[in-house]
Parts: sequence; C-alpha cells; structure tokens
Amino acid sequence: MKIMTLLGSSRKDGNTAYLSNKALEGIDHKEIFLLEKKLNPIVDQRHDAGGFDMVNDDYEELFFDFLQYDTYFFVTPVYWFGVSGQMKIFFDRWSQYMKDERIDFWEAFRGKKAYVIVTGENPHPKTAALPLILQFNAIFEYLNMEFVDYVIGKANKPGDIQSDAYALEKMKLWNQQLKADSSELTIR
Amino acid sequence: MKIMTLLGSSRKDGNTAYLSNKALEGIDHKEIFLLEKKLNPIVDQRHDAGGFDMVNDDYEELFFDFLQYDTYFFVTPVYWFGVSGQMKIFFDRWSQYMKDERIDFWEAFRGKKAYVIVTGENPHPKTAALPLILQFNAIFEYLNMEFVDYVIGKANKPGDIQSDAYALEKMKLWNQQLKADSSELTIR
Amino acid sequence: MKIMTLLGSSRKDGNTAYLSNKALEGIDHKEIFLLEKKLNPIVDQRHDAGGFDMVNDDYEELFFDFLQYDTYFFVTPVYWFGVSGQMKIFFDRWSQYMKDERIDFWEAFRGKKAYVIVTGENPHPKTAALPLILQFNAIFEYLNMEFVDYVIGKANKPGDIQSDAYALEKMKLWNQQLKADSSELTIR
Amino acid sequence: MKIMTLLGSSRKDGNTAYLSNKALEGIDHKEIFLLEKKLNPIVDQRHDAGGFDMVNDDYEELFFDFLQYDTYFFVTPVYWFGVSGQMKIFFDRWSQYMKDERIDFWEAFRGKKAYVIVTGENPHPKTAALPLILQFNAIFEYLNMEFVDYVIGKANKPGDIQSDAYALEKMKLWNQQLKADSSELTIR
Repeated sequence: MKIMTLLGSSRKDGNTAYLSNKALEGIDHKEIFLLEKKLNPIVDQRHDAGGFDMVNDDYEELFFDFLQYDTYFFVTPVYWFGVSGQMKIFFDRWSQYMKDERIDFWEAFRGKKAYVIVTGENPHPKTAALPLILQFNAIFEYLNMEFVDYVIGKANKPGDIQSDAYALEKMKLWNQQLKADSSELTIR
Repeated sequence: MKIMTLLGSSRKDGNTAYLSNKALEGIDHKEIFLLEKKLNPIVDQRHDAGGFDMVNDDYEELFFDFLQYDTYFFVTPVYWFGVSGQMKIFFDRWSQYMKDERIDFWEAFRGKKAYVIVTGENPHPKTAALPLILQFNAIFEYLNMEFVDYVIGKANKPGDIQSDAYALEKMKLWNQQLKADSSELTIR
Repeated sequence: MKIMTLLGSSRKDGNTAYLSNKALEGIDHKEIFLLEKKLNPIVDQRHDAGGFDMVNDDYEELFFDFLQYDTYFFVTPVYWFGVSGQMKIFFDRWSQYMKDERIDFWEAFRGKKAYVIVTGENPHPKTAALPLILQFNAIFEYLNMEFVDYVIGKANKPGDIQSDAYALEKMKLWNQQLKADSSELTIR
Repeated sequence: MKIMTLLGSSRKDGNTAYLSNKALEGIDHKEIFLLEKKLNPIVDQRHDAGGFDMVNDDYEELFFDFLQYDTYFFVTPVYWFGVSGQMKIFFDRWSQYMKDERIDFWEAFRGKKAYVIVTGENPHPKTAALPLILQFNAIFEYLNMEFVDYVIGKANKPGDIQSDAYALEKMKLWNQQLKADSSELTIR
C-alpha cells in the first residue's frame, strides 16, 4: 500500500490536515500541499490536431508522481460547496493525459483506493457537502476506482475540528483498518 | 437588467458559448472569458489578524466589475463532474471579500438573478451534471440569489451542441423571456 | 416498442398525466393508474427459509403484465421530494421477485427503456426534484435499464402545466422521437 | 424532550431497529412500527371544493399522536434508493392536514428535531443513500425542522449491522448526547 495525500486547503495545518494526520498516524505516506505547486488551469486541446502542448508548470511532475501510488486521500475544505480551486485544477488537468502515449490512462487509475476528507461549517456540512461527495463518487466510478470511505467534519476556525467527536472517531477506525491492511500485506 | 456572462470553458467558442450566445442573441451583455484572466487560488487568511493581503492578479478588478451587474450567466463545461477550475477559483476568491469594508458582501448578491449553462457528454450530463446543479443551487441559496433556470446540454466535440434540440429550444425560450423582461423594464 | 405508463398521481387527469398524454399522443401504450390498484407494502421475507408468501392484492398480476413491456413511463407528482407512496410500493415489491423461479429478475429489466415525468411547484421542482431524479437514475443503473430522459414540469393546480412552455416543448420532441423510433421498427 | 421513533422497515427487529435501540438505550420514547398500521395512499383533494374526505384507516390517530412529540427518529432501510413505501405514505398524508383547521400545520413542525437512521447494502449505502438523505433534508428544511444528524449503516441480513463499527460508535455518541440533553432539561 503506497499512500498519497492531496491537501486542497488554502491554509497549512488546517482542520482537514488535522483529520488526515489522525487517519494516517504512524502510517507511511507522501503528502502534497497543492497550493505550493504552480498549477495552471487546463487549456482544452483535446480536439486539436497536435494534441496538448507542454505546460510550463509543476503539474506533469506531480501527476507522474501521483501515478506511483495506489491509495489516495483527497483532503479539502468545502469551498462554495465544492473542492478548492487548486484541487479542481488538479482533476481538470487529468484530461490532458487521457490519450497520452506514455501511459494507459484508464489502467493507471483502475482499482486504486480513494478516501475523502472534507470539512465545512455553515450551512452544516453533513448535508451541504453531499453534492460534493456525489461528485467525488462520480469521479471514482468513472475511473473504476474504489471509493473506500469519506468523512465530513464540522469545523471552521483553526482547531475547531477537535470537538467533532464523530469525525475523530472515524479517523481512529480508519487508522486501525489501514494499519491492519498494511501488516496483512507485509506478512504476505 | 445588466447581464454578465462568465465563460468557464478552456476553449473559446465552444459548445457552452454557443448556447449562451443563443440565449443572449440581440441582448446587451458583457462577456468574460475566465481563462484570459490571471486568477490565483485563494490563500485563506480569514482567521489572520490583518485579514487578506492584496493579491497581484486580475481578480479584484474583475470582481468589482462583476458587482455592477444584476443578472449572471454561469457558463461552463462539466469538467470532472464540476465547474472548470478557473470558475471554481472565481467562486473561492469571493470569500476574500466577505468582510471587506468597501462593500456589503451579502447585499451585493441578494436578489440578483443567476442562469446556469453546462454541457457534457459522457456519462450523459442529464444525470452526471446533477451534483453540479445542486452545488450551484446551494451557492445561490446561500447568497439569496434567484436561480432562474439552468440548461444541461449534451456535447463534446466542437459544434456537437447544434444537434441538442432540447437545449436549443430552451435557449430560444430564455431569449424570448429575456427580451420581454428587458422591454418591460424599458417601458417603465 | 411496447410502452407502459405508470401513473403515480393521487388525482386523475392531473398535470403529470397531461404531460404523458402529450408525449404519447398518437402512440399505442398501456396506462396504469396505480391508485386504482390494491398494492400492499412489502413484507420483507427475503431472509425467511420459505421465501415470500403469496400476497392477496393486485400486485402480482400487475407485475407480470409490466414485464411484458419494454419501455416505461414513470409519471408522478413530486410528493414530499419523492415519488408518491403508491409508486414507491410498486418499486419496493419488486424485491419479492428477485429470486422468483418463474422469471429471471435481472434479465427481465436489462436494457429496457425508462422515461420519467415529474411535476412539482414549491420549492421550484427544477432543483427540488433533483434528489428524486438521482434516485430514479440509481434504480435504472442498478437494473441496467436505459434512462432515456426526464422532464421536470412546474405545476400545482389542475391545468397549471399548460403554461410550462419548456416541458410542453420537450414532450413534443419526445413524441416526434418516439414516432420515428416506432416507424423505424415497423419498417424492419 | 418527547421522542417518537417511526420504524419504516418491513421486518421487525431488523438492522435499522437495532441502531435506533442503541441510540435510545435507557431513554424514554414511543415506537411506531408503521407496517402494523393501516395507511392508505393519499387521495389528492387539495383542489376540491369540499377539501379532504375522512379516510377510514389508522392515519389520523397516528398523525395526531405524532404531533404530541418534539423529537423524531425516522428509521428505514433503503428500499430502491428511498424510504419504504409505508413511510412514504406517512409523509404523503401530511398534505391532507396542511389546511386543517384543527391545527396550525406549519407551527406543528417548526423547530422540532429530526434524526434519520438508514441502512442498506448494495450498492454501498454510503453513497447510494445520499439522494435519500438529500430528500430528508429537503423535507426538514421545508418544514423548518432541525435535522440534527443521520447515520447510514451497512447491513442486509439480520444482524449484519453489528459489524458496522462506525454506525455503532455514532449511536453511542448520540445516546450520550441525548442523555445529556434530557438531564439538562430535567434540572431546569
């Protein structure tokens, strides 16, 4: 199990990062803070004869690194009822590689595991985040990934999340399961 | 009625633009192609003592221009079951102005009209776009805007949209209604 | 093409029926007004050793008739953000036949076509009906049916629907398409 | 706090009942097993001059009893991506009392608390139940009720639910909170 965490927040060490740290406590993983990367919006050249031009930013290196992993944590506050803009660009740019001859795009995603961590405050994210969860689900179904689970935390100000007992409990259960999965894999 | 159209597509003169042109044929409006603007992701400083720093990009000028209008067309292809990244950033950056003393953020949106035009192809957007429509609806409810209507067109390759009879018919009906609304307003 | 229309309304000749009549004008079809049938809620005996008991109501006859068709119109007002109770019971009782040896339940649905007609008024059904459309979509995906299209009409009082120009236009386009499909099939 | 639990299941002592028993362990509440009640589908007479006729079933007595409570547990398996038919009828019949002179319909619901317990198995309810959760949310918003929380359990066969650690944990937390709320109220 090789785990990559993609942090979509616009603030370091925020509430979403707190949850993912709890879930992955003591578990080896790579963490990407998307805001530190230079990521341009996609320029749609799917229908251009020459295909996509090279883009001079951090995306390609990040994307090929991303493909090395098999388990992903998508971690983002709910901004305006969706993922953060930088995480959305991270998804949009996938389209650039659908016909890239260096990879088999569909095979690169198939069967990989996805966890989603989102937090919000008002309106209460337990329902306000559901269109976003449906959006994530649609993405994972489209790519034949396994949507293992999601958590919707309630938090706004730094530290708020520590009083969301359900979310913390869920992270504890994920952590136990992830550790059990890892040791099983090691024994084999 | 002052209309602004926000084009989220990553391709000029695409299928979404075709629909908005039909809806607004013969009607005065301002058109913004978001990809031509330099729009940085939000850096969340809501909880910083000094508030938000100035950002050196095109957003602030665009935002204050946007506030001059009362009717908005949000026009975007469905990219990975959501709006395009640049349109998402356009929304995210709103948060920077919620406590800005130069404006009354909530009053600036209240009662304004919103139209949504989205297109997609596979999975069929008539259902694949619904989480996105729910997301738009949540945004407009949160801001006390009036969500007048939406259209979900089916199209992928340039020009495809011209065979979506329902979408075209709806644009014709919107156009008639918008013209009727304008002339009513003028008479007064 | 053998078409069955299932009317879930609690009022005869209501707004939903008006739309389905427009869609099917001049096209042979069977119409079931569910409220006229005696349909008991399902008693879940899936995990009982002896399976399901016979139920003394109109369901079994209706269900086996239903299976003779290949194209279904599910027509219901939006009652409390869902289908009517009698239509919900019609779905629930399907579960009784999943392991029935007289039929191959999954094959009986696979590839069949489904149209959905719903109407509502307040909150505006263009968004209030979307969870219901997602529910229909999930049902059709689960059964490997083809969800051809849906219409969401705005109407409450008898006759209201006649001022929903877009819904009427869509019914006209469905009618043309259904007629074209039928004649194609006949020629073959 | 006066709590009523509405069980929509078609099986007594099923997985949903197991969860609600855990949530309400040691807490006084009234439990209604809807399948034991004779509940006819609504006949829509909202637009009839004489209004609604009396219906000869168990609904009216149940409804007036229901109104005596201030906290509701809506407990149902996910049947075909929605509530059970009998629970749907329970909602539909509300419409009969909207203009009933014996009560102020809107005031009777305003501010009351709602909990939702659903279970399902395949497709995994964590996403398959979301349209249903959105439907519940829309109902509660429409009635100005407070949607306190929901749990989506994974279970099919009798007893399955006992291995859904997160659902059980959530019930334990609800139970603690409900007990704390009750004792607070008693002290006052």
